[in-house]
Amino acid sequence: MAKPRDAKRPEALLPKGFRDIDAAEIRATQSMLARIGEVYERYGFEPLETPAIEYTDALGKFLPDQDRPNEGVFSFQDEDERWLSLRYDLTAPLARYVAAGLKEQKLSLPFRRYAVGPVWRNEKPGPGRFKQFMQFDADTVGTDNIAADAEICMLAADTMEALGFERGQYRINVSNRKVLDGLMEAIGLGGDENAGRRLTVLRAIDKLDRLGADGVSQLLGEGRKDESGDYTKGASLTDRQIEKVIKLINLVGFDGYKSLLPNESEGDEDSASFFLSGVGKLAVRVDHNKLFRFLDAEFGENKQFEDGLNELRQIAALCGSAGYGPRRVLVSTSVVRGLEYYTGPVFEAELTFQVKNEDGETVRFGSVGGGGRYDGLVERFTGQKVPATGFSIGVSRLQAALSLLGKTAAAEAFGPVVVLVMEKDRIAGYQRMTQALRAAGIRAEMYLGTSGMKAQMKYADRRGAPCVIIQGSDERAKGEIQIKDLIEGAKAAATIKDSKEWREGRPAQVSVPEAQLVEAVREVLARHRG
Amino acid sequence: MAKPRDAKRPEALLPKGFRDIDAAEIRATQSMLARIGEVYERYGFEPLETPAIEYTDALGKFLPDQDRPNEGVFSFQDEDERWLSLRYDLTAPLARYVAAGLKEQKLSLPFRRYAVGPVWRNEKPGPGRFKQFMQFDADTVGTDNIAADAEICMLAADTMEALGFERGQYRINVSNRKVLDGLMEAIGLGGDENAGRRLTVLRAIDKLDRLGADGVSQLLGEGRKDESGDYTKGASLTDRQIEKVIKLINLVGFDGYKSLLPNESEGDEDSASFFLSGVGKLAVRVDHNKLFRFLDAEFGENKQFEDGLNELRQIAALCGSAGYGPRRVLVSTSVVRGLEYYTGPVFEAELTFQVKNEDGETVRFGSVGGGGRYDGLVERFTGQKVPATGFSIGVSRLQAALSLLGKTAAAEAFGPVVVLVMEKDRIAGYQRMTQALRAAGIRAEMYLGTSGMKAQMKYADRRGAPCVIIQGSDERAKGEIQIKDLIEGAKAAATIKDSKEWREGRPAQVSVPEAQLVEAVREVLARHRG
Repeated sequence: MAKPRDAKRPEALLPKGFRDIDAAEIRATQSMLARIGEVYERYGFEPLETPAIEYTDALGKFLPDQDRPNEGVFSFQDEDERWLSLRYDLTAPLARYVAAGLKEQKLSLPFRRYAVGPVWRNEKPGPGRFKQFMQFDADTVGTDNIAADAEICMLAADTMEALGFERGQYRINVSNRKVLDGLMEAIGLGGDENAGRRLTVLRAIDKLDRLGADGVSQLLGEGRKDESGDYTKGASLTDRQIEKVIKLINLVGFDGYKSLLPNESEGDEDSASFFLSGVGKLAVRVDHNKLFRFLDAEFGENKQFEDGLNELRQIAALCGSAGYGPRRVLVSTSVVRGLEYYTGPVFEAELTFQVKNEDGETVRFGSVGGGGRYDGLVERFTGQKVPATGFSIGVSRLQAALSLLGKTAAAEAFGPVVVLVMEKDRIAGYQRMTQALRAAGIRAEMYLGTSGMKAQMKYADRRGAPCVIIQGSDERAKGEIQIKDLIEGAKAAATIKDSKEWREGRPAQVSVPEAQLVEAVREVLARHRG
Repeated sequence: MAKPRDAKRPEALLPKGFRDIDAAEIRATQSMLARIGEVYERYGFEPLETPAIEYTDALGKFLPDQDRPNEGVFSFQDEDERWLSLRYDLTAPLARYVAAGLKEQKLSLPFRRYAVGPVWRNEKPGPGRFKQFMQFDADTVGTDNIAADAEICMLAADTMEALGFERGQYRINVSNRKVLDGLMEAIGLGGDENAGRRLTVLRAIDKLDRLGADGVSQLLGEGRKDESGDYTKGASLTDRQIEKVIKLINLVGFDGYKSLLPNESEGDEDSASFFLSGVGKLAVRVDHNKLFRFLDAEFGENKQFEDGLNELRQIAALCGSAGYGPRRVLVSTSVVRGLEYYTGPVFEAELTFQVKNEDGETVRFGSVGGGGRYDGLVERFTGQKVPATGFSIGVSRLQAALSLLGKTAAAEAFGPVVVLVMEKDRIAGYQRMTQALRAAGIRAEMYLGTSGMKAQMKYADRRGAPCVIIQGSDERAKGEIQIKDLIEGAKAAATIKDSKEWREGRPAQVSVPEAQLVEAVREVLARHRG
């Protein structure tokens, strides 16, 4: 159909906060996801895929209000005017799946599932923060067995190693929400009337990594002014209350359980390394039993705290018995993770190596994933408590870390072999050669543009071709082809200065009968793969 | 934060037209996508990922009108009230990407890219039709070289074989839009004033598979009443016009180029098999040169037709020279594919084997993908013509076909080994065994529920466990474990009738020292894998 010629042309623009992903990153991501998936499978988890779109009320949490239906999530109405949303994580759809499965008696518990896919947040984007990003989750649903939590910690540790992080470069930190809640109760912040202050305290604790103990102390007290002059109001705790909180969360600053290792040694499975800003790396021998005795003596004043401590004790014992000591799975009472969500153990996968941040400061890379136990999974739907525990990896952040360490999957060693078009009226012959290479499993393409020899060579370079295939009329008359090894050629170009010597020597270029095309290309590839 | 107790509970429901995907299907899809990707890579295509959300005006085609912004696509407004949409295919985002890349001089042409991912259509769902589904596309952008089209045909053929379809079970049909347009011009349907009628004619031709030549003839003439009594108005062509159209599109009904093969032979690379409703399977020797002479003699009245025919001639020659004869790549002038979109060659991947349809009739499986050449890719954005040609696979439909033929990737041979919990206060020991199996690369899980032995065995069965690991207090005292081979056990259960014999024989159950756990389990797995 004819279109009006004066129609305004649209701009070729991506919406703000979205991005295209190029071939190298896609390949690295695919390889990473495959490795994570292998570990999850080995632990008995089964994949599940839910759609991108759910009913807004089934997703919950970020229920859009009438005036601003897009608050935090992307929402829109269906033909019946019901609100739909793009999923903002993979847990909310799991809750809907489990609630429906239990209602229809199609799901047996316990149920281990993993899921990977994009999620969407309608939030202000920033550097490295996009409105669409990928998560990789593993959750165990329908059991309050603490072994399920211990298993998640070991799964997370194994995942880090499967991705290529070495022991000591990562750690799974475990705490328990009941421990923090018990402490708050002990310092007089229990009860519904203190819910707001408790949230302020949790938010402050969550900043320990960034602000250190002093910064957190200020936030627990009157408040804190940051370098830009912005002031954050504090929780107005008393000095005694603050001291107690800091004592719990900043264990590395106390010496109830640790002994410094000499010479910044990495230590063994019983030691953990910390990075203290201003101090640097610190390797510490950790005795979990000693730690529990210390915590019990200092804070063991109410049942909530004791329950939490007891769960941590069991997790440490289960992991320890399977050989996962404090170096891999460390009880670390400063972990908060998700302010209102978790009800028991909480986990965090931390990369312990140092990187420079935007301000040029040396900092630990920090968290690349986390999770915990949440008992309210399907309660919203059915009123029924179904305990669950899980772990979620932020795929891009993990990939950034792998890339910093040079541990992303090696990109394809080479691009495709490029068959040059020397005689434009004979492309059937070039196409036949290209297909012969492809049929032999060799990545290959025939040049499809209209340019001459020089531009074709440039194209082959840009494509990362290991070699090009050349057949002009002379070669054709002899039933031959020329194979020009671009990798060898580049090396030779770096040493041969004399262009006459170059032309005469024709380095890295061989003639072979056309029938030996595949064999000869295989030789080139083998030479450089070796 | 406390929630009001009387809040209405949401229902655990998926929106209509969406679905969850289970583990078996996910595994089959993953394996399929990996195989397709391997072929595309071998042809030199590079992966590209674009986000799910684009500006509505950048997607084009289905521009939502003000009253019904959701017509066909899912659309919503951002904070600046600009319309956003979920992508409805992978080509529109490619167009945006190419237009932006050319403007910013970041993209060099020719450019071969592939893309795989979900797309969304806000259309009425039906059986097997969902509002979210997956496409897998390959496109070559920035060349009008007919070799790019020929290459797409061979790529499609190789893809079908990589997925396990045998030669003869599939075919890539190629036509050319210029051939159909040239015919329309020849029968007096040229010019803007006949655009509507041309569309009606194309729609009728597109139904040849379903309605046969007689049905299409009716739709080209006055109209057609279907079995349900519904009447479709026709294009009101004269008998002579109809005869000409049918002659072009129903080549198999003419004998200008074919000779029937005896005994329903499958024939060789030069023969194609057809399925004619009412006649059955028909194997035909195809001589493309004879076909072109026939078409030229019958219809070669204008430049448009000649141009189209010439392009088809080149595609057939390029494919033929590389060994892809009519059995794999067949010139078939009835292919329409996408009514207003394509400007040159059009392709269709057809599965030629027969299946029963919903009405119990034997029909060919039909199309699982298609594509063609389109020169207007980025014209909407820049006014610039950038020729492109591509191919898109409907992933679910292809998977349905593979599943019908029993060619989906074998599901995991077994589920995880299940370690039973016999003594509830000794889970550290069971967890240690489980981790030992996992560390050896064996899929394993410890039972996490609270039930007794019988329920645990049932759980292991449901999980498809090859064997369970049992250690009660007796075994523990001896430092042993029992391995119960569930596959062997099921076989034995089928032959041993006497329950006393069963209990005494304890078939398929062995005791081994705990230290030999991994080794013994490996033996069980090897026995059944063999």
